[in-house]
Amino acid sequence: MLGIEELRLLFEDYLKENHFDQRPTALYDPVNYIMGIGGKRMRPVMSLLACQLFDRDVTKALPAALSVEIFHNFSLVHDDIMDAAPLRRGQPTVHAKFGLNSGVLAGDVMLIYAYDYLRHSPLKSAYAEMVNTLSKVAIKVCEGQQYDINFEQQTDVSLPAYLEMIEMKTAALLAGSLELGALAAGAGTEDRFHLSEFGRLTGIAFQIQDDYLDTFGDPEKVGKRPGGDIVQNKKTCLIIRALELADDATREQLLTLYGSSDYPPEEKINRVTDLFIQLDIPAFLKALRNQYQEQAYDHLDQVKAPADAKKILFDLAESLLVREL
Amino acid sequence: MLGIEELRLLFEDYLKENHFDQRPTALYDPVNYIMGIGGKRMRPVMSLLACQLFDRDVTKALPAALSVEIFHNFSLVHDDIMDAAPLRRGQPTVHAKFGLNSGVLAGDVMLIYAYDYLRHSPLKSAYAEMVNTLSKVAIKVCEGQQYDINFEQQTDVSLPAYLEMIEMKTAALLAGSLELGALAAGAGTEDRFHLSEFGRLTGIAFQIQDDYLDTFGDPEKVGKRPGGDIVQNKKTCLIIRALELADDATREQLLTLYGSSDYPPEEKINRVTDLFIQLDIPAFLKALRNQYQEQAYDHLDQVKAPADAKKILFDLAESLLVREL
Repeated sequence: MLGIEELRLLFEDYLKENHFDQRPTALYDPVNYIMGIGGKRMRPVMSLLACQLFDRDVTKALPAALSVEIFHNFSLVHDDIMDAAPLRRGQPTVHAKFGLNSGVLAGDVMLIYAYDYLRHSPLKSAYAEMVNTLSKVAIKVCEGQQYDINFEQQTDVSLPAYLEMIEMKTAALLAGSLELGALAAGAGTEDRFHLSEFGRLTGIAFQIQDDYLDTFGDPEKVGKRPGGDIVQNKKTCLIIRALELADDATREQLLTLYGSSDYPPEEKINRVTDLFIQLDIPAFLKALRNQYQEQAYDHLDQVKAPADAKKILFDLAESLLVREL
Repeated sequence: MLGIEELRLLFEDYLKENHFDQRPTALYDPVNYIMGIGGKRMRPVMSLLACQLFDRDVTKALPAALSVEIFHNFSLVHDDIMDAAPLRRGQPTVHAKFGLNSGVLAGDVMLIYAYDYLRHSPLKSAYAEMVNTLSKVAIKVCEGQQYDINFEQQTDVSLPAYLEMIEMKTAALLAGSLELGALAAGAGTEDRFHLSEFGRLTGIAFQIQDDYLDTFGDPEKVGKRPGGDIVQNKKTCLIIRALELADDATREQLLTLYGSSDYPPEEKINRVTDLFIQLDIPAFLKALRNQYQEQAYDHLDQVKAPADAKKILFDLAESLLVREL
């Protein structure tokens, strides 16, 4: 039975073995660059953990794990182009370092390799289902990204619509990472469904928490000063729910503050935060997150697998979803 | 037995039935736009023709045909971004009409659907091989595109390197279109190999001919004035072979003419064309094209399929590769 850190190291070794040393180097250098600048390898570790529920030989899920990590990095490369982002994980983004064309083309070849790695999965009977699962997730991620772009221009986004966007853009890949790992181990439909739901609901809970912590988190624990999303007028669960609940006057105040860059940041953060508190947003979001988190654990309970293997997956979720907000 | 035009219409009907009416429309409108502005549907027709060699029920290859057409259009959308091209088939390119972000994201979702459509192919036993074939081709197309970008900056590209780039960037997808259609009909390895080679070699022959005709074609038959590639300093078989053959003085002349925009277009075309003729480039390229064309037909001969079905594929190649250059 391997723990999270052991699985992460196992994956890192597999990643090294599968370094892209094909030619032309102008195509594969950006791929190796983005795959190499790290991240927590959350998704591949989830694939390996899902495999371990059904088969102690987690190496069976290494190709699936690499597939989801390549897919995730493909989406980062193209999202960074769309957001015109200069930095990713503290390093220049692919398009900033290698140019727009390299960003587009390296992303494309990564999406293809995300499919192609599934071919190396040893359980051949699961191959078709693995390819279909990747496609299903990949389509959701693209659609979610488009909704995210659309929502930036809208002031009337509903909370359910926002949560659905989050589900497509981020939670679907967490669910898919678990599903692919489980498929690689030959898990049955029902167990895969509960695992997938566990991943999806954990992903949504995490994103709600992320929005909450940006404004209401303990700066020492979160590691940054609160209010970044407010300063950047970022659409979050907080502002969306606040606009839904507010009376006309408060709504007007919120819309004036949000979307303006005339206020000094501290004043803007304080005034918006006060309005959030008046509207009881923190309590609402804590409850909402807890609701998704509990539903997620209910699904994990229903997966038929050894308790000690499930415990590691539970611990991973607990490390993501802090108990005390 | 269906002819080329019947197959094209069959494909157009299938394309209409499979209109992308999913949401969000901001994602799928660009997809329907590029899929709708036409083209000759050469690749899907090739898939259907390949299927017809082994199974008269060509509808079996419709999902594969749609897959290759979606893939082809994905590559056009992203290539047009990389080339900053304003027009495609006489219409605005996707990124020109819908913006860069839509071009990137619509292309991504098309690449995913190119995989996903293979799922609808009725011969389930061929599914894994179809997915692998698409990946193999898709990787070649990306690598070929990168070589094409690289070569634009180089003055020392060899003819074999240029032909390999062409093979990857365009001929591989023609080969893949035939392979996928044959797979959908349950064709065996050997027949698929010969069909694939027929497609690959026809593709290379066609591209050599294309380069030749741009400078030496009959304007009435080609439908445009000769010399466009010369005016645009485009890297072609002609200039690459000429630079390989030329003595130092001629090479100097060619490099001065090519890469300069100081000459009046007519004078530049005439002077470069004269140098090509002095170096006997037209005869060399005719012979080279014929060599690929003959090899292509040799492979078609070796496919074990009814002569009348093979005749249609032969006629398609003949319509692409004119007898008298």
